[in-house]
Amino acid sequence: MTPPLKLILGTLSALALAQGAAASDLRERAQELFAPLPSTIPALNDNVITEDKIDLGKALFFDPRMSASGVFSCNSCHNLATGGDDNMETSIGHAWQKGPRNSPTVLNAVFNEAQFWDGRAADLAEQAKGPVQAGVEMANTPENVVATLMSMPQYIDWFTASFPEEENPVSFDNFAKAIEAYEATLITPSPFDAFLNGDDAALSDGQKAGLQLFIDKGCSSCHNGINLGGNGYYPFGLIEKPGADVLPPDDRGRFAVTETADDSYVFRAAPLRNIDQTAPYFHSGKVWDLKVAVQIMGTSQLGEEINDAEADQIVAFLGALTGKMPEVTYPVLPAETLLTPRPTGEVQ
Amino acid sequence: MTPPLKLILGTLSALALAQGAAASDLRERAQELFAPLPSTIPALNDNVITEDKIDLGKALFFDPRMSASGVFSCNSCHNLATGGDDNMETSIGHAWQKGPRNSPTVLNAVFNEAQFWDGRAADLAEQAKGPVQAGVEMANTPENVVATLMSMPQYIDWFTASFPEEENPVSFDNFAKAIEAYEATLITPSPFDAFLNGDDAALSDGQKAGLQLFIDKGCSSCHNGINLGGNGYYPFGLIEKPGADVLPPDDRGRFAVTETADDSYVFRAAPLRNIDQTAPYFHSGKVWDLKVAVQIMGTSQLGEEINDAEADQIVAFLGALTGKMPEVTYPVLPAETLLTPRPTGEVQ
Repeated sequence: MTPPLKLILGTLSALALAQGAAASDLRERAQELFAPLPSTIPALNDNVITEDKIDLGKALFFDPRMSASGVFSCNSCHNLATGGDDNMETSIGHAWQKGPRNSPTVLNAVFNEAQFWDGRAADLAEQAKGPVQAGVEMANTPENVVATLMSMPQYIDWFTASFPEEENPVSFDNFAKAIEAYEATLITPSPFDAFLNGDDAALSDGQKAGLQLFIDKGCSSCHNGINLGGNGYYPFGLIEKPGADVLPPDDRGRFAVTETADDSYVFRAAPLRNIDQTAPYFHSGKVWDLKVAVQIMGTSQLGEEINDAEADQIVAFLGALTGKMPEVTYPVLPAETLLTPRPTGEVQ
Repeated sequence: MTPPLKLILGTLSALALAQGAAASDLRERAQELFAPLPSTIPALNDNVITEDKIDLGKALFFDPRMSASGVFSCNSCHNLATGGDDNMETSIGHAWQKGPRNSPTVLNAVFNEAQFWDGRAADLAEQAKGPVQAGVEMANTPENVVATLMSMPQYIDWFTASFPEEENPVSFDNFAKAIEAYEATLITPSPFDAFLNGDDAALSDGQKAGLQLFIDKGCSSCHNGINLGGNGYYPFGLIEKPGADVLPPDDRGRFAVTETADDSYVFRAAPLRNIDQTAPYFHSGKVWDLKVAVQIMGTSQLGEEINDAEADQIVAFLGALTGKMPEVTYPVLPAETLLTPRPTGEVQ
């Protein structure tokens, strides 16, 4: 008994309609919680973005001579080839010292409300000044950065073109602003953006189910907005503290910034774009498996056992947050001159 | 008494003719000693170059996970942003150890007769295997490199496409061959090439005078061929040994390769393309000023005092060896998986 073709087609199109309706319900719900990446580079506070400034910022971002040793550039720990981070538990820096926290991705970081795991920098320009001066990272000083830049005529030209109104364009502030301008271009549109923008086919059924779970389980209470995180602070271990391996007791997070007892073990909710490119996870970098990280979050933050099948679906959804990298032409940097401060690997 | 226009024009064109004749004499002499870069990528021994292999080699060249620590890639010490080297006396490597010799540029290195300061590697594929395994550099093992590559499906696909005839394409040998294929593309045509190819205007008068001196003083006895060096071995201090700061007594150069007394303090003549981008100089990296380096060479190798004005002219000529970098699109590398060996900064 073969059913008539008309009936089959009718059933199929009803199914397609139902799936379409489900997708559009899910999209509506998602649109309330999340936002797609914009199609243009965002405007920055007090920092007009120009092509000259972007190019200068890229040169600075990739220039290892911004570190005292000449070994590390911004790109060393925020490597654009590997998801905008360095794939280590915590970064290795000057004199082989280890940084205290996992390096966060620079990709889409412009959309975070504040920078660093504890949000201690208001924006990317303020952030950029941190690692350059940190003794365990690039171990440099603002004076030495400026002296290095001033020693290379090409850099002076580039700063002059980027900050045309200023009498002394080569400054540590402008160094940071140029890097911020470049980093604002590091935006990676993903299948999830296409879905939010109306393309049902951008997510697989498994990814849609994962998105539904991500909302239903409560993940989106903290991981929402453009970056699915990066916009609020929460105690790690809200419901149940994870073990000391994952949450080392001596790093009390935002407490160091606000010195408020309530902020003990409080961290910025991690932004989740490109998360499957940026293992290991958490500020401690102690968890390498994204599925395990999802399950730890369930227990510690939501008081929810997330079972294996559910975690797999959520991980599938997180995969839809991995976006397309902008094409980056590797810069050609100015050569040092005899005036350029010499690199030193010594601990000062 | 104004001379008739015809006479002026006649004198000018005679002068131009004379200059043209001088330039063409100089070119003829230069063509006997040097050779311009070819317009195509050179063929390699036992290593067919394909686009797939070049792309794979680029990924490997920039991948810091080829080092045990995850900190260093080939590009760390042979940075394409800074003349193909690292601008340090000697490189800093694994666990902040210092390498024994100055990092040579990778640019145009395919035209060197052999690789390393002592020529101990016959070609770039053999060279590529060295730093990866050197304890003071990348501190990795062939087994760990292959395990790292095999852990990322994208790398397996890339190796399969690059070595389509082979049953086990992911091997340490093929890792080296792919890097060699990529490095063979790093060719930088310079004004000097344009001059050799017939363009009188490619060199300034000062640069032409410097070229003439470079030949007359005898520099070209050792620094000749395509790379103006890189093709022969000579004792450093042939006429007069430089001080122990420049020529440290414990590094006897090619002696370590051949164990022949004659090879004591013998090094490969440095290739000079892009030399003004790659301070500091000599295998010890102790001299930062190119002019001083030229004068030391005069005394130690030629028994010639090269005076200030002459050294300036030779340096001007050397500037004409700085070429145009190929445009390099920064690669997007595969993400690690749970099978990827974890990075370690420990000394093994």
